Amino acid sequence: MLIISAGATTAEEPAAGLRSIGAKTLVPPCPVWVIGSYDASGKPNVMTASWAAICCSKPPMVTVSLRQATYTYGNIMASKAFTVNIPSAGFAEEAAYFGSVSGKDVDKFTVSGLTPVKSDLVNAPYVKEFPLVIECKLVKTVELGLHTMFIGEIVDVKAADSILTEGGAPDITKLQPFIFAPGSPDFYRIGSSIGSMQDLGKKPRK
Amino acid sequence: MLIISAGATTAEEPAAGLRSIGAKTLVPPCPVWVIGSYDASGKPNVMTASWAAICCSKPPMVTVSLRQATYTYGNIMASKAFTVNIPSAGFAEEAAYFGSVSGKDVDKFTVSGLTPVKSDLVNAPYVKEFPLVIECKLVKTVELGLHTMFIGEIVDVKAADSILTEGGAPDITKLQPFIFAPGSPDFYRIGSSIGSMQDLGKKPRK
Repeated sequence: MLIISAGATTAEEPAAGLRSIGAKTLVPPCPVWVIGSYDASGKPNVMTASWAAICCSKPPMVTVSLRQATYTYGNIMASKAFTVNIPSAGFAEEAAYFGSVSGKDVDKFTVSGLTPVKSDLVNAPYVKEFPLVIECKLVKTVELGLHTMFIGEIVDVKAADSILTEGGAPDITKLQPFIFAPGSPDFYRIGSSIGSMQDLGKKPRK
Repeated sequence: MLIISAGATTAEEPAAGLRSIGAKTLVPPCPVWVIGSYDASGKPNVMTASWAAICCSKPPMVTVSLRQATYTYGNIMASKAFTVNIPSAGFAEEAAYFGSVSGKDVDKFTVSGLTPVKSDLVNAPYVKEFPLVIECKLVKTVELGLHTMFIGEIVDVKAADSILTEGGAPDITKLQPFIFAPGSPDFYRIGSSIGSMQDLGKKPRK
């Protein structure tokens, strides 16, 4: 039955037992992506970002939002390129570290022992040890406020054989990426399958 | 040790055992968000989207990319507002269904038995039964190709008491959202904690 309680609720008394918790970015789950870029001297840098997503299928594009204060912001503005490196859960320490210090102050590759590899397609480094890497050329920036959106066209995706299905797509159970949940201090693993969207969407409706 | 193998790799022979799998949107994990909007007649509609993310902290903003062919595209263009409704795993069937049919053809609320509630803050409906709801006013659209990015400012977040921590933030283990993994037909649950970012980032480096 369709019921629209038009205007019947107020901020003080939301319907359905929902409570206002304020205009905040409390919208889980968020991905944990490691963004690779070069500075003007050619030093490779990585930073961890979670305000990020796929944003277009054709051409294939991703968006990553960064604060102007980050080292990566200036790097990408100048180089017009970046990589997205997806860490497996085994690289959670590195991902957390990459998000805790600035490339202005330290060489994060040297400290972590991970290896930068220059992309053959764009002017950005990727992380050799990570199982899934996306190479992007910057196509647009959008100033929003504290964050600026960097929109990159995907020019290639590279994957370790060990995380691919027979069909050649990433198998998330092998990739084992993890997520960030705004409001929580922790990283969380991906869990079990709920079932296929096709089957789930066919179930009898109420 | 820092090693930059500048230009040493080719598309045919990527370093580190990484294999090119093409310029595709194979970038997991993606959120599963249900987008609420009204059409010109006031009929509430919901569609499921995964090309979506938080995109700015101040002001708080989210972005959702939609194809022009969707019913929701026209709705938001006209109403300048939308909601983001986060389903728990118990609503995976509804989320899959909302992504499988168009609001042009069916009334998804009536078919699913879920209840639209008119937001008191923006001109869009939210899903009464879902545990976390974000109300947004449209602030910008960005045409990218097959998809158009809708950027919305978060004007409020509403949550069920049952999913909140004592501190008033969503507890992801209670919320139980789920994710979409491009390349896989399945929805996946969120799994266990890996640990806090602060602790993970402090571990001794190699």
